[in-house]
Amino acid sequence: MSLIECVPNVSEGRRPQVIRACADAITAAGATLLDQTSDPDHNRSVFTFAGSEGVVRAAVHALVDVALGTIDLRAHSGVHPRMGAVDVIPFVPLGGTSLDACVRIAREMGAELAERHDLPIFLYEAAASAPHRRGLEHVRRGQFEGLAAKLLGPEWAPDFGPAAPHPSGGATAVGARHPLIAFNVNLATDRLEVAKAVAAAVRESSGGLPCVKALGLPLAVRGVVQVSMNLTNFRTTSMERAFVAVRDAAKGFGVEVLESEVIGLVPAEALASAGASAIRLPAFRPDMLLEVRLLSRPAIR
Amino acid sequence: MSLIECVPNVSEGRRPQVIRACADAITAAGATLLDQTSDPDHNRSVFTFAGSEGVVRAAVHALVDVALGTIDLRAHSGVHPRMGAVDVIPFVPLGGTSLDACVRIAREMGAELAERHDLPIFLYEAAASAPHRRGLEHVRRGQFEGLAAKLLGPEWAPDFGPAAPHPSGGATAVGARHPLIAFNVNLATDRLEVAKAVAAAVRESSGGLPCVKALGLPLAVRGVVQVSMNLTNFRTTSMERAFVAVRDAAKGFGVEVLESEVIGLVPAEALASAGASAIRLPAFRPDMLLEVRLLSRPAIR
Repeated sequence: MSLIECVPNVSEGRRPQVIRACADAITAAGATLLDQTSDPDHNRSVFTFAGSEGVVRAAVHALVDVALGTIDLRAHSGVHPRMGAVDVIPFVPLGGTSLDACVRIAREMGAELAERHDLPIFLYEAAASAPHRRGLEHVRRGQFEGLAAKLLGPEWAPDFGPAAPHPSGGATAVGARHPLIAFNVNLATDRLEVAKAVAAAVRESSGGLPCVKALGLPLAVRGVVQVSMNLTNFRTTSMERAFVAVRDAAKGFGVEVLESEVIGLVPAEALASAGASAIRLPAFRPDMLLEVRLLSRPAIR
Repeated sequence: MSLIECVPNVSEGRRPQVIRACADAITAAGATLLDQTSDPDHNRSVFTFAGSEGVVRAAVHALVDVALGTIDLRAHSGVHPRMGAVDVIPFVPLGGTSLDACVRIAREMGAELAERHDLPIFLYEAAASAPHRRGLEHVRRGQFEGLAAKLLGPEWAPDFGPAAPHPSGGATAVGARHPLIAFNVNLATDRLEVAKAVAAAVRESSGGLPCVKALGLPLAVRGVVQVSMNLTNFRTTSMERAFVAVRDAAKGFGVEVLESEVIGLVPAEALASAGASAIRLPAFRPDMLLEVRLLSRPAIR
């Protein structure tokens, strides 16, 4: 079985009946809903679900049907940037599935959604059709309100669908990416400048570790600071390597690590490979993990 | 979904068509066959499969039907101890399933198999009906050839079924246990006495770590020695704790650890919790692992 995760972001975080209808559409298609968060200030909901390719594709179609039928961006407000009723649909490989398979699915689904709804589609991340379209922040710049003008320029012709926004639904970014790990390390100090300096030392954009994004943040209630990271490819930079880099950089300021935390879910391989290092298990392979093996085989009933 | 692993041992390791029929019975019932090993000297095959409770129960019934119909212990030879055509059927909890659930399933399946086949059933390990019946080595002592006499004594009346062997199929042990991890640590020495002393230091039976069995073995080809362990409950004694105990005991002899190895499959939780220690993640819980969460939810299609 080709196992896929999908994490669509929908521009509705306030009306419970719409959010519930979105979740119901996903599960009714046979997908397994792993996680669901809604934020009224962002006016946005994030659904995390998984299943075989066929089930995931059916669930995406069902979700988009519901969202385009119930959400009108002309009357939408919220602090999170957005350009579509269904704002972004990333496909993520799990188990033995390849990123290439998810790129293929993103492209096919993009074409299908454009055709079905007369909806402009931008491919992004690993599925992007040009380097300047990889980053979601570039694709979404200008948001819903700037979309009509943006679509007219040659740089931002949609990958599929019309060069005009869907009246109520805007446009949707469809992409493929590796699993993302939200990994934070808390430091035993209240000095925000230390967290900021450590973040700068470890993040890729300022010459640190590849596939690491990092920010220094205060945790006011606890009176400490945090290096908040996104690992965008844990096989390139592992959780362990990111942790050690933060610990060593903090040590340069005479500051100790308090503990780390993970937000949301993490692929078993990412933590298990850190465990394999700790017990000197050089032959570690993800498919020696019982659950990974189980999910890579057909027919779990 | 209540996810169960089952690891039946069948007394046939030579006739490929019988072994194949056993495997086919398991998969035709909808279970996922994770691993399969056959040994002609042992004249024995071990099948590892998993699925929901209903699927696993159906697969066990299908397997026992095939095995009792094709294997005759009156004509069986092999170096591994055995008392039944289907010798032993352990049920193992995976994901969010409890050991208690597997004890219930073992008892219900024992009653069903006894009724269906007029087969004596001994419950063992966590499902045992008395302390002297917990250990499989005690249940199986006397083997098929001593079974008729053994069943007549009051201490070994079967838990279900007649107090006489099945003519060709003998008797079957049905039980429940935690996942077992076959975990070996290789030492940078050829001195077997060091491996034996380290094994004695870490195993439960000589006052070491709970739920650890250990032997010192030579790895002749490599010219080193190995501490070969079974961890019978990795939540009681973790892989990490067993590794550190071996490393420290070896250090007492001035010997370093070369590396460790795992035979077969390992629950993701067991390696991931070692990883969580390595990156100081105190809030680690198995259900933050994506695959564990996925398998604990209904409907993977």
